Amino acid sequence: MKDSLLFPVDQLKLFSNDILVKVGVAPENADIITETLLLSDLRGVKSHGLVRLSAYIGRIEAGVMAADKAVDTVMNNKAVALLDANNSFGQVAGHRAMKLAIGKAKEYGCGMVMVRNSNHFGITAYYSMLAIKEDMIGAVLTNASPAMAPFRAKTPLLGTNPLSIAVPANEYPPIILDMSTTVTARGRIRYAAMTGSDIPLGWALDKCGKPTRNAQEALEGSLEAIGGVKGFGLSLAIDILCGILTSTAMTGTVKNITDNSGPAKTGHFFMAIDIAKFDDPENFKNKVDEIIRIVKSMPSIDDGPVYMLGEIEYMSTSENLTNGIPLGIEVVNSLNVLARRYEAPQLS
Amino acid sequence: MKDSLLFPVDQLKLFSNDILVKVGVAPENADIITETLLLSDLRGVKSHGLVRLSAYIGRIEAGVMAADKAVDTVMNNKAVALLDANNSFGQVAGHRAMKLAIGKAKEYGCGMVMVRNSNHFGITAYYSMLAIKEDMIGAVLTNASPAMAPFRAKTPLLGTNPLSIAVPANEYPPIILDMSTTVTARGRIRYAAMTGSDIPLGWALDKCGKPTRNAQEALEGSLEAIGGVKGFGLSLAIDILCGILTSTAMTGTVKNITDNSGPAKTGHFFMAIDIAKFDDPENFKNKVDEIIRIVKSMPSIDDGPVYMLGEIEYMSTSENLTNGIPLGIEVVNSLNVLARRYEAPQLS
Repeated sequence: MKDSLLFPVDQLKLFSNDILVKVGVAPENADIITETLLLSDLRGVKSHGLVRLSAYIGRIEAGVMAADKAVDTVMNNKAVALLDANNSFGQVAGHRAMKLAIGKAKEYGCGMVMVRNSNHFGITAYYSMLAIKEDMIGAVLTNASPAMAPFRAKTPLLGTNPLSIAVPANEYPPIILDMSTTVTARGRIRYAAMTGSDIPLGWALDKCGKPTRNAQEALEGSLEAIGGVKGFGLSLAIDILCGILTSTAMTGTVKNITDNSGPAKTGHFFMAIDIAKFDDPENFKNKVDEIIRIVKSMPSIDDGPVYMLGEIEYMSTSENLTNGIPLGIEVVNSLNVLARRYEAPQLS
Repeated sequence: MKDSLLFPVDQLKLFSNDILVKVGVAPENADIITETLLLSDLRGVKSHGLVRLSAYIGRIEAGVMAADKAVDTVMNNKAVALLDANNSFGQVAGHRAMKLAIGKAKEYGCGMVMVRNSNHFGITAYYSMLAIKEDMIGAVLTNASPAMAPFRAKTPLLGTNPLSIAVPANEYPPIILDMSTTVTARGRIRYAAMTGSDIPLGWALDKCGKPTRNAQEALEGSLEAIGGVKGFGLSLAIDILCGILTSTAMTGTVKNITDNSGPAKTGHFFMAIDIAKFDDPENFKNKVDEIIRIVKSMPSIDDGPVYMLGEIEYMSTSENLTNGIPLGIEVVNSLNVLARRYEAPQLS
């Protein structure tokens, strides 16, 4: 028996859009949400792909998240703005916020837009990558539910609080950093728990603070921060920008995507820097090509390739566009449960 | 025999200013440089304190760094600007850049100022802390000479590329994150090499890529990045903002402070966010107090205290202001060599 099945991108796009619209999302917003999920699956980041659809819809069904509400502008003042997602999809507010940041960067050199009262917004790189299309550098931060203990503390308080920075190149694919401030993202542990796989030692601690290989124990414990106190510091700074400056959620109170006891109260931060204000963008991108060339030509620890950030995901995207996106059987099953509930065609 | 001697802050201030002025620095700029060095020593961050004075002056004597040249404005456009340090002290250009970023944030909500053709600028937190005095959040990045190998590569290319984020509080001392993207800063290894101390395993690799406890071997090898590929990504992003966007130095070509073969070609990035655009600053700072209270009240792994970021440095500052700043004998000796050369009074 196979572990996963391959699906053409177009089939998955129709499937996801169909269900989202049936749940009450406007078609143009369903497009954005689906695009973030498929970008993740295309890039091989399975944890933030279609596997999340059931959880999103579960939140809507539980009445703790709105299917589609207009994004409000709380403040819009020159280079900065604050939007309110009104507890609807993080993807919709996030897309709008990054577009607004890009417009501000064009006018002011940089733009910084924050979002309050939001939800999980999918893969962070989706938003930073919107900036590179405009010859800009994009940077995106989001808070998340407690997963990481403060340095020297026992229990989780901070989120995995990911960040993404995207930098355009010319010849080469763009440089895309998309990382959590923990050694690994909780989504990968959740995926491992869902598929019954072990996790490597060093990723997480159990609820007693001991290292564990068991994904379920890890979900009940805390994730290790990169660089110990440094990762804690980065995560805290992201929490303050996304949660406190936006008046969304006190540190430690953001809800997990699977916790349907109330609104998630997620906050995001989007920044764009217009390269053209500093340099001719073509000149800049040629220099980025040169960096990539230098890095990729360095001797490696094992004579294998040295990869640039985002390169593996770029190769995965090319492969998946050609061969189809592989979805784990468990993911397919969870999607088919949704399809039955919303009288949509099954994936098979 | 004692390892270190205590000196009142005022004595060290006069000493440092005196020598800097004799080297050709204008008194008001000497003040800024001295302030950054003493802030570092006060905070207990010995690696970035007066221990650096000899190296700075060595660069000037070698003719690879200017003692004092006016900072030029290359571009100044609404929320962004680019300054040229003209190969003079990083502290002088950095101070001016952060002040400019703060002014821009007051007008535009956020301000982003970069500096090209600069030198080592001391402790990164000095600049981010300028923002908190104005009820702003400060963020500062700088590139540095090759110390970290790209992920899976053998030899150093990226710098330790530190970042600092400062957030004001009310009752509590501000939250100050000041970290390198490596497990430790090279300055600490340099200090260990200077004092003949060993370094902990996990900080660095030797030139063959093997873990080492020997500080000298570590200086000839590479530093470990936090979170492996993640720290590499952060460092590369900082390099691109500070070195490439500023047209200062191609990745891998920034010179070490002790490499007197040419200009250092360091670049910096300064950002300020005006809290008042998003929230009443008092309300924001009260919430930051609450975060600190929450973190500090959490059960710790060993029943000892859980420290907030910058708290240990704050306690060190209070202690050193009262008792004097401890300087290692080797540091005192290096300063007295300078004093003899510039006919200044000896420290003793």
